[in-house]
Amino acid sequence: MKKVGVAILGLGVVGGGTYQILTEHREFYQRTQNVDIVVESVLELNRERTRALGVPSDKIASNIAEIVSDPDVSIVVEVIGGVEAAREYVLAALNAGKTVVTSNKELFCKYSHELERAAKRQNAGLYFEASCVGGVPIIRTLLDGVQANKISSMMGIINGTTNYILTKMTNEGTSYEESLREAQQLGYAEADPTADVEGFDAAYKLSILASLAFHTKVPFTKVFREGISGVSKEDIADAKELGYILKLLAIGKQSDAGIEVRVHPTFVRKDHPLASVNDSFNAVFLTGDSVGDVMLYGRGAGALPTGSAIVSDIIYAATHSENKYSTFKNTANADKDTNFISDFKSAYYMRLTVEDKAGFLAKIATVFGKHNISLVELLQKPGKAEDGKVPLVLVTHETHEMSIRKAVAKINSMEGVAHVDTVLRVVS
Amino acid sequence: MKKVGVAILGLGVVGGGTYQILTEHREFYQRTQNVDIVVESVLELNRERTRALGVPSDKIASNIAEIVSDPDVSIVVEVIGGVEAAREYVLAALNAGKTVVTSNKELFCKYSHELERAAKRQNAGLYFEASCVGGVPIIRTLLDGVQANKISSMMGIINGTTNYILTKMTNEGTSYEESLREAQQLGYAEADPTADVEGFDAAYKLSILASLAFHTKVPFTKVFREGISGVSKEDIADAKELGYILKLLAIGKQSDAGIEVRVHPTFVRKDHPLASVNDSFNAVFLTGDSVGDVMLYGRGAGALPTGSAIVSDIIYAATHSENKYSTFKNTANADKDTNFISDFKSAYYMRLTVEDKAGFLAKIATVFGKHNISLVELLQKPGKAEDGKVPLVLVTHETHEMSIRKAVAKINSMEGVAHVDTVLRVVS
Repeated sequence: MKKVGVAILGLGVVGGGTYQILTEHREFYQRTQNVDIVVESVLELNRERTRALGVPSDKIASNIAEIVSDPDVSIVVEVIGGVEAAREYVLAALNAGKTVVTSNKELFCKYSHELERAAKRQNAGLYFEASCVGGVPIIRTLLDGVQANKISSMMGIINGTTNYILTKMTNEGTSYEESLREAQQLGYAEADPTADVEGFDAAYKLSILASLAFHTKVPFTKVFREGISGVSKEDIADAKELGYILKLLAIGKQSDAGIEVRVHPTFVRKDHPLASVNDSFNAVFLTGDSVGDVMLYGRGAGALPTGSAIVSDIIYAATHSENKYSTFKNTANADKDTNFISDFKSAYYMRLTVEDKAGFLAKIATVFGKHNISLVELLQKPGKAEDGKVPLVLVTHETHEMSIRKAVAKINSMEGVAHVDTVLRVVS
Repeated sequence: MKKVGVAILGLGVVGGGTYQILTEHREFYQRTQNVDIVVESVLELNRERTRALGVPSDKIASNIAEIVSDPDVSIVVEVIGGVEAAREYVLAALNAGKTVVTSNKELFCKYSHELERAAKRQNAGLYFEASCVGGVPIIRTLLDGVQANKISSMMGIINGTTNYILTKMTNEGTSYEESLREAQQLGYAEADPTADVEGFDAAYKLSILASLAFHTKVPFTKVFREGISGVSKEDIADAKELGYILKLLAIGKQSDAGIEVRVHPTFVRKDHPLASVNDSFNAVFLTGDSVGDVMLYGRGAGALPTGSAIVSDIIYAATHSENKYSTFKNTANADKDTNFISDFKSAYYMRLTVEDKAGFLAKIATVFGKHNISLVELLQKPGKAEDGKVPLVLVTHETHEMSIRKAVAKINSMEGVAHVDTVLRVVS
């Protein structure tokens, strides 16, 4: 039986989960995968962690050089996180001809071309299933499951922290701040939650997934990004009233016109399969030209779910000598020629505060008409009109982002008529 | 660029879809998969079909021998359906060293060992993603996406016809007969619907999927099977009232005690992800020891979705020289030693007609108590008690199938007390 030596860089949450899965399942993989996967080495300075996991002391390396020069190690798992050290270690491993398995979305998103070149040069494998959507095998599916399709659209709930917060706001009517605080207490959100709540994490993942789905490199910098920190109780309540659920969606679309990639809070119609993806669960909803709609659902984070993705990559690497970096086969072309669409089309939800005076509706309607915006729904809410102001809620048909921005600017300039409080995008 | 010649046996619905995808996407696969896939030959006697698809006459073979002796053909796609001819053709192709891609669940389910031996002998590939759940890449996921996991449970809505019928009954309150008739008119059900409505189709697929998930051959004959032809309007209405949706589930479980596999109409709690899988959509809900819950959702049938699965297999076969029949690696062992559990555990829904006399409840309760059955819910329904009989609905805690059967037999023997009209299994 083929024996494959693994080194794990970092025994934090995901590294610990990976270590645990590999050691507990060794016999299981021998039996079912016909391969003997052995953890030969770990790089972890924190002795509490190595002790808690029961790592034998002769398997604890002192530095990366020891690992990359170890002939018994053929697969290096990078789960230290961060960018600089991870990049250095991964390059060192690839340059030494080791196959690398990483969960590092930021690293992969920012440096995939460099890592790819190093991997190809040495004919080393480079795998990153765990970088996106935890245990859900979305990357394997894009590469080997729906690769017969031209993918026109991908919509995902790919950040567990924000989904937890929005689910709580929806189910319990709590504010953003309260919900974030609870997510932090439960360990679902970090002390500095910026990367999650402002959509950076989702944007990194979308960059990777869209690159695979659309067969061209989609740089992180092209992703339109809006977080959930501005979402109010009123937005959540309006969504419900109009038959939607508010979710942070990562959306990628490809057509003859080009590619659009965006992360933003979105009204999702409540009977859409994504609408019932709750708490810290994630899902990706794909549309292919042959397969139609496909959705993958599961846990987007956590020691064991993410460890599952890493170990699946390890097994794949250990049992395939081809297609080690099939990603690049698909993303090498067209980088420079791709048209990225910033003036994308969407339907919109808008909440305005209007002066309750005769003719205000005609004035607003004129602005919309001028920008070719037509309405699906208009809801004048019974507001506290003491100061002569009332809330107005509307949903538009599909229109251009730029038309909406211009219309909003125009309405906000019409003092004494109306003010736009919120604009959110809508998927029906 | 590597050129790969394909022959398609049968240009029915799925064969036609496959032909269309391959011819329309040839340039796309050259660009994105670095392989030139060419349809070299088709075997189809119906000239209307070949004409409708525009198959050049020099690509129409007259018999299977022509195809298996064609050196330009390396992959043979079997989509003729049925068992006898398909088996003969597939064996002929494998014996000639051709890789086979099939959508034929009945063939694969019944003859996988024979096909496997032939494939291994010639080092030919054997792929069957399209045999289960149409375009949903569930087989690829089991093999290469969640293979790091010990799968403890798999629950699927894997037959589109029955899901269409049950969705219609649920949403519109129609009877089974009316719903079946409409499904037949729309082409979702066949003139003889037995294979679908009696659960044979789902049982074939479950046999294949459970074999992969549990790494041991799960014969079709071990699948407990109950169809939906006995489902009544009352069952559907009771499900709703109790907070469930009635679905035909295929369930596979593995534990230290053994494997259980069963297909039956099931009450699914309405907030379970499977409960909102409607119409002809399919889904499979897996539980792995590391990844936790994962669900795949999509179209389980149709020319293009099933064609998508076939073409994904073709591309995989064309770009991988290893893992051609990785299924067998995982299913060769333990066939004889596997314990198949027929006395499985489940919760149950039951509807009884009881004589509205003092003490009837105590009598029924005694029977349940004797068989260790405890109740979650008991609902005495306001019935037409003119004849002194009233309907009684109950849901049990988890108990043994055999205990339920014994209790039902006992109750039915107590004349003048109660009669059990329906027993259905419940997943919460």
